[in-house]
Amino acid sequence: MPNPTATLLISCPDQKGLVAKFANFIYSNGGNIIHADQHTDFSAGLFLTRIEWQLEGFNLPREIIGAAFNAIAQPLQASWQLRFSDDTPRMAIWVSKQDHCLFDLIWRQRAGEFHAEISLIISNHPDLAEVAQQFNIDYHYISITKDTKLEQESKQLKLLQNYRIDLVILAKYMQVLSSDFLSQFPKIINIHHSFLPAFPGANPYHRACDRGVKIIGATAHYATADLDEGPIIEQDVVRVSHRDNVDDLIRKGKDLERVVLARAVRLHLQNRVLVYGNRTVVFG
Amino acid sequence: MPNPTATLLISCPDQKGLVAKFANFIYSNGGNIIHADQHTDFSAGLFLTRIEWQLEGFNLPREIIGAAFNAIAQPLQASWQLRFSDDTPRMAIWVSKQDHCLFDLIWRQRAGEFHAEISLIISNHPDLAEVAQQFNIDYHYISITKDTKLEQESKQLKLLQNYRIDLVILAKYMQVLSSDFLSQFPKIINIHHSFLPAFPGANPYHRACDRGVKIIGATAHYATADLDEGPIIEQDVVRVSHRDNVDDLIRKGKDLERVVLARAVRLHLQNRVLVYGNRTVVFG
Amino acid sequence: MPNPTATLLISCPDQKGLVAKFANFIYSNGGNIIHADQHTDFSAGLFLTRIEWQLEGFNLPREIIGAAFNAIAQPLQASWQLRFSDDTPRMAIWVSKQDHCLFDLIWRQRAGEFHAEISLIISNHPDLAEVAQQFNIDYHYISITKDTKLEQESKQLKLLQNYRIDLVILAKYMQVLSSDFLSQFPKIINIHHSFLPAFPGANPYHRACDRGVKIIGATAHYATADLDEGPIIEQDVVRVSHRDNVDDLIRKGKDLERVVLARAVRLHLQNRVLVYGNRTVVFG
Amino acid sequence: MPNPTATLLISCPDQKGLVAKFANFIYSNGGNIIHADQHTDFSAGLFLTRIEWQLEGFNLPREIIGAAFNAIAQPLQASWQLRFSDDTPRMAIWVSKQDHCLFDLIWRQRAGEFHAEISLIISNHPDLAEVAQQFNIDYHYISITKDTKLEQESKQLKLLQNYRIDLVILAKYMQVLSSDFLSQFPKIINIHHSFLPAFPGANPYHRACDRGVKIIGATAHYATADLDEGPIIEQDVVRVSHRDNVDDLIRKGKDLERVVLARAVRLHLQNRVLVYGNRTVVFG
Repeated sequence: MPNPTATLLISCPDQKGLVAKFANFIYSNGGNIIHADQHTDFSAGLFLTRIEWQLEGFNLPREIIGAAFNAIAQPLQASWQLRFSDDTPRMAIWVSKQDHCLFDLIWRQRAGEFHAEISLIISNHPDLAEVAQQFNIDYHYISITKDTKLEQESKQLKLLQNYRIDLVILAKYMQVLSSDFLSQFPKIINIHHSFLPAFPGANPYHRACDRGVKIIGATAHYATADLDEGPIIEQDVVRVSHRDNVDDLIRKGKDLERVVLARAVRLHLQNRVLVYGNRTVVFG
Repeated sequence: MPNPTATLLISCPDQKGLVAKFANFIYSNGGNIIHADQHTDFSAGLFLTRIEWQLEGFNLPREIIGAAFNAIAQPLQASWQLRFSDDTPRMAIWVSKQDHCLFDLIWRQRAGEFHAEISLIISNHPDLAEVAQQFNIDYHYISITKDTKLEQESKQLKLLQNYRIDLVILAKYMQVLSSDFLSQFPKIINIHHSFLPAFPGANPYHRACDRGVKIIGATAHYATADLDEGPIIEQDVVRVSHRDNVDDLIRKGKDLERVVLARAVRLHLQNRVLVYGNRTVVFG
Repeated sequence: MPNPTATLLISCPDQKGLVAKFANFIYSNGGNIIHADQHTDFSAGLFLTRIEWQLEGFNLPREIIGAAFNAIAQPLQASWQLRFSDDTPRMAIWVSKQDHCLFDLIWRQRAGEFHAEISLIISNHPDLAEVAQQFNIDYHYISITKDTKLEQESKQLKLLQNYRIDLVILAKYMQVLSSDFLSQFPKIINIHHSFLPAFPGANPYHRACDRGVKIIGATAHYATADLDEGPIIEQDVVRVSHRDNVDDLIRKGKDLERVVLARAVRLHLQNRVLVYGNRTVVFG
Repeated sequence: MPNPTATLLISCPDQKGLVAKFANFIYSNGGNIIHADQHTDFSAGLFLTRIEWQLEGFNLPREIIGAAFNAIAQPLQASWQLRFSDDTPRMAIWVSKQDHCLFDLIWRQRAGEFHAEISLIISNHPDLAEVAQQFNIDYHYISITKDTKLEQESKQLKLLQNYRIDLVILAKYMQVLSSDFLSQFPKIINIHHSFLPAFPGANPYHRACDRGVKIIGATAHYATADLDEGPIIEQDVVRVSHRDNVDDLIRKGKDLERVVLARAVRLHLQNRVLVYGNRTVVFG
């Protein structure tokens, strides 16, 4: 990555002059904007934008950019995030027994599709330890029962801290996280194996088969305390027919889950996803 | 249509020899099968098939085919329907105020995509009378209120009888039909403006926008007493983004609704849809 | 349209400060930007952007905006177009014998999907005069033979002038335009009935059927002297199978052609398409 | 696989009674048909069918079925193939340097999506030997130059014989096979990284980017002496935009290539693909 960039994701109440103010901040400090996209949600009265600029030739040192920008942002009541393209976020992948998303994420990380590390795999089952070993990734088996859930969550949380994890990916982790956990570690992307809001909850493929739908889907979203209700990042679908039984739906669904989850993770890592309310702006 | 065909849609408990028995019936009477497709639903223990053969050279006169086939079907506990490709079913299109599906169905009928007549348009509003007039189709305006619904439904039913209607198409008819009506006239295809079972009921596009989905859909299904729960014939979807407000979803949705409804009507008219339980087999 | 907007489409050699300069122009004159999107083509060294702002409260009168902006644009070697959302472009639809795109465009115009008028229909056949009459649109039948082509093109050109046409839509006009014509009237959108660059030229559906493809497509592009080689605005596809014969491909293709052409026309009318080289940036 | 089946793929000149004859053959020998689908290509005058039946209770021993069926097939000038679902075909995967299809095929084989073995990996580069080792599959590195091609092909051919390979999968093997090789081993599936017939030959993604297409695709086909001209088994597409540079197209293309190739391999292994002329019937 010869030419690192900085990216700002900004949301604030709409008013005149916002594009100019933000662009002037970059330009007056010698930055070259390579991506600027904005969205105005008129019903919410919100201005939402993503600005990415090259750090080469930018006059402000990195550690000062945030404070300098805040001087502009605060009077506008803007909330914002700043990221640098040469940072390498640390990801934890959580799985249960199914390995298709895990394999896929590992392959993509090694292929360079994510500018991030897979630092840790956590599972409530021992089954996929072998995969972790094969790719030389730490694997922590933490079994969960109704009674041990809260206790085990504190172990999980400690692991995230020890490994300095930036992003958790629930890659077919078939356990619900407590709202307490979510409030302590909110950066979590989940893949749900249906086209939400159709078939939330358990066994979506069985229910899709029973309902006789002609298309199935998968949904990647940020995890929230309301199960399967978090902000949607990406969805995709595939056609099915009466010839497809539940096993076929599960098999076709796996292909969807892999690609939908991977796209969502990549969009997140590129700071292209801005959450507001229960919705996302995805700057493509 | 120089070479008319007959089509049988058959469902019966699965057992050995069904394909042979049905094929022999056609062959022994001199028929040439041009399409034979079957599906076995193992969990339901059902054999479902569609057989189409050319009537030219077939030894049985049309009016006898049904009785002759019943001699084979009855011992197998088969239920079946027989249709002839040169019959011209008579359709009634029901609308409210939106004209996109109506225009589309009329265009397709005139373009020869349906081997059927549009004999009648029924609406609970007077707005689209002009369209009907433009294309020289009878238009009956029957207003509906909570209080008059049952009474008006009996008028609608009488119209269907008078016009000898074979198929009702609810082409954005924004009224719920009573279960009494549905039991008296069950051949009804409805278009619902969402990807069922997501967003059943009212205002699906508003709710899709609020939920922040990345894909919207439309669903054509047979109408049943359980609203939006009937057997699905066809579905399709289109991508949306944060840039699409409710009006955009409605506009994009119209394109979906038109094509999904038209495909379902065509499949039905070609006797390619076999309903069993709350599901369909669509013989492509 | 209670709140009209102005839109600039700009392309210029990339350099620092462009976003700031353009945004400052709007802001310093009291405008509120509601859409600003940019794209940098690094290999071409080009900065391409679309900026839309509300005219209410904008200090410059409309007739001065262009000259004022040019003072900024010229030193940057920028080429640009300025349009106002409450202008109503005048469209001419060119057809041969097929009516599906014509009907569709007329329906959409009446439904308010285009902020434009259909002022004129030109055809090399008399067949669709009746449709024009039905919707009360002028229809000019100008037959074309090899020998009369140039002469007839001058008649067509004169019609475009007389009707003050802004945009020509080739809605299944099955004639090639001369490069001379195209140089005199370059604002032309064509629909080609294949997924270009597959199957350019004549009879794409027959050739697609022969080749045994599993998906067919349609392509809307600006017309250029190189037939089927102009900048692509929009494409879409649909699945086909061995069961689909040429007639089926043609029928399925019509649905594609309608929607792909309509999307391209709408994008063009909203000033979302910026052509550079033989490519387009489509600001979604 | 508790209940093995036999499958016949049959093509023959169309005539009356074919469905009955074939079904009677199964029924009279005590077989239960679980899938029977037919297609008539009227322009070619061909009847093409797939029949699958349960072997349990079938009176003919496996080794006799072929000869017995031939007594029926020969008078009809039918060509046919017979396969058993509990046979385990042996596959050789050919690669160059890219690993995405290889990883995907290995994962699917291990997940049980293919009822087949991966017996051998052949490559013209040493790069992927490590992957082979990781999954414990034999890897043969056979370098190819213009001068050594024919000689090396004979080595490759010998390997296929030694390993008793039933199916070769060109999983991004970036070498053209000689027609001599193809005539000696015709069971080869190739993945081409474009939506054929668009962009045959080299560098399709670069050319797609230059052409400014809005959708890219991938095509799985049987390899023939005419490069990229073999019978198409499966295709799929994905949307791209002006924001996608060549690297993005390549990355998005990889996802397509993986899933399109995998679907084609699975369809082939389930004996669902019948080649006639340069086309395929895919019995879904």
